[in-house]
Amino acid sequence: MVFSQERVDAFRDLLSTSSRIMVIGHRSPDGDAIGSSMAITHFLRSLGKEVSVWMPDAFPDFLSWIPGASDIRIYEGSGKEANRIMADSDLILCMDFNRSDRTGPMSQVLMNTETPKVVIDHHLYPADEFVVTFSETQASSTCELVYRLIEAMGEKERVGMDIAHCVYSGLVTDTGSFKYNVHPHTHRIAGELVDLGLNSAEVQSALFDTQSEQRLRLLGYALSEKMRYFPAHNASYITLSKEELKRFNYKKGDTEGLVNYGLSIAGVKFTALASEKDGVVKISFRSKGDLDVNVIANEYFGGGGHKNAAGARSEEGLLRVIEIIEGIIKGLPTA
Amino acid sequence: MVFSQERVDAFRDLLSTSSRIMVIGHRSPDGDAIGSSMAITHFLRSLGKEVSVWMPDAFPDFLSWIPGASDIRIYEGSGKEANRIMADSDLILCMDFNRSDRTGPMSQVLMNTETPKVVIDHHLYPADEFVVTFSETQASSTCELVYRLIEAMGEKERVGMDIAHCVYSGLVTDTGSFKYNVHPHTHRIAGELVDLGLNSAEVQSALFDTQSEQRLRLLGYALSEKMRYFPAHNASYITLSKEELKRFNYKKGDTEGLVNYGLSIAGVKFTALASEKDGVVKISFRSKGDLDVNVIANEYFGGGGHKNAAGARSEEGLLRVIEIIEGIIKGLPTA
Repeated sequence: MVFSQERVDAFRDLLSTSSRIMVIGHRSPDGDAIGSSMAITHFLRSLGKEVSVWMPDAFPDFLSWIPGASDIRIYEGSGKEANRIMADSDLILCMDFNRSDRTGPMSQVLMNTETPKVVIDHHLYPADEFVVTFSETQASSTCELVYRLIEAMGEKERVGMDIAHCVYSGLVTDTGSFKYNVHPHTHRIAGELVDLGLNSAEVQSALFDTQSEQRLRLLGYALSEKMRYFPAHNASYITLSKEELKRFNYKKGDTEGLVNYGLSIAGVKFTALASEKDGVVKISFRSKGDLDVNVIANEYFGGGGHKNAAGARSEEGLLRVIEIIEGIIKGLPTA
Repeated sequence: MVFSQERVDAFRDLLSTSSRIMVIGHRSPDGDAIGSSMAITHFLRSLGKEVSVWMPDAFPDFLSWIPGASDIRIYEGSGKEANRIMADSDLILCMDFNRSDRTGPMSQVLMNTETPKVVIDHHLYPADEFVVTFSETQASSTCELVYRLIEAMGEKERVGMDIAHCVYSGLVTDTGSFKYNVHPHTHRIAGELVDLGLNSAEVQSALFDTQSEQRLRLLGYALSEKMRYFPAHNASYITLSKEELKRFNYKKGDTEGLVNYGLSIAGVKFTALASEKDGVVKISFRSKGDLDVNVIANEYFGGGGHKNAAGARSEEGLLRVIEIIEGIIKGLPTA
């Protein structure tokens, strides 16, 4: 049980002797990293702690409205100051990652620090470098775990609108709006946050209605011009060359989620998105049911992931990647 | 209180003297109409009732997987049989609509029947034609009300996976995946259904990953070629001529949801979709915050709706409609 009395007591003891606390999220921070880091920060500040929040690198603009996000410091470019704060801190909270090497430029110093570290996370295979480990891989999000930790500590009355917005942001972004990895706790917590007064339409709009014009145009172009569909094999794929990405003024993150459109055609069980970025071809695979794209990504490109969502990269060029993907599709069972 | 003891008792009394029950949804049935009709049907059948389920006209294919949906009869083309069943029924349940004239071809016979009618619904302004009215306009969906009615009757143990799938389908389609009209009950119920064993990823996939290739191509074309964006006025609009719709083999429902893309650009507060259908131009408006498209739709086109979502139709032709929309946009406050 993730929130056993023993673990919660150990955490409470650590807090009681810690006045300066450093909160850290993972590299390329997402909604759950920012949401969970700020949720625990608001909670700790309500207990009178002095909290410093750091991310290894920048987070996307669409998360900047999260309450307190303007307090977040970025390690890249301010490493010296961060290292000093880390050394002076009484405690480090590692949020939404479970081993130091997930923090990019902070990895070495975080690995070797003498300041005790606590982890709150839901990813597989936590490392053995923490004095207290709150890890539950079935949880929808680290935000869900932060909320449940606050409950387990008997401090739920400290959850106000700031914490509510932070927690909800992680719940909704890590589940694709309550689609994936949803467990009874996930909805219970969302309901309690709505009960507190959170407006889910406003928050989802703040999180998702933040596209650039060019990103929408790229989506449109990809669907109308670049998607290939193989009805007999229940498959589809999209490719984007570096010239095409450039034409739409591609920015990091602009193709995120695009691969899922290929799976939204009725009957499609396999799809892929191949795009030329940073001199290589990045490939995302998605599947439905028993079709295992983890195996496919590994066999053809040395990649991997999960059964229904995997990724790979190739240095063989886009044309060769297309040949391989079409070969994979031709080998799929016909309808 | 929608489920007052008095109302629930009245409903229970009606059920106790009814053995043949007719369940009816509204014209152009959606996920909530089908979900709530089948949820109450499964419940009534578990009580030993003989239930006949009817919709005024056909429902979309993507709802055909809903448990029991193959039992649903369509009034169009079978009116005589339906009228006979209605006359022979002891009770009629009106699901997800609140006045007989929302049932198209059934309206007259439903209005004039001597069989007592009960309504379960969440729309504004219920008519005064029902012997028991379960109406709560704040509810996310009629499915939510069906679940709460079963609870209020003390019969929750009858909620199995069939009812769970029906109820969840209405919750998720009527809220845009837990975005709009979400109340604490909505998440509580979703959590209880997940607790029962419902797989939200599978159900959402069954509901939403059902596009035709042509519909996706039309979406792509609309976004890449037909969307106009006015950053200074925080506005956008999309138009589709009848020739364009024909080119993509347009089927009813193919442009549903398209208008929302125009609102997903960061900062956009006003958007419209104008499409030539059935010899007129149909216009959908969406807005954010205080900008009232109900007023705009009414002032310029005699249409209406709600503050942030309204509709209208025009017989003045697409080019004139575009002129008017651009005029509206030019009159919006600049950023």
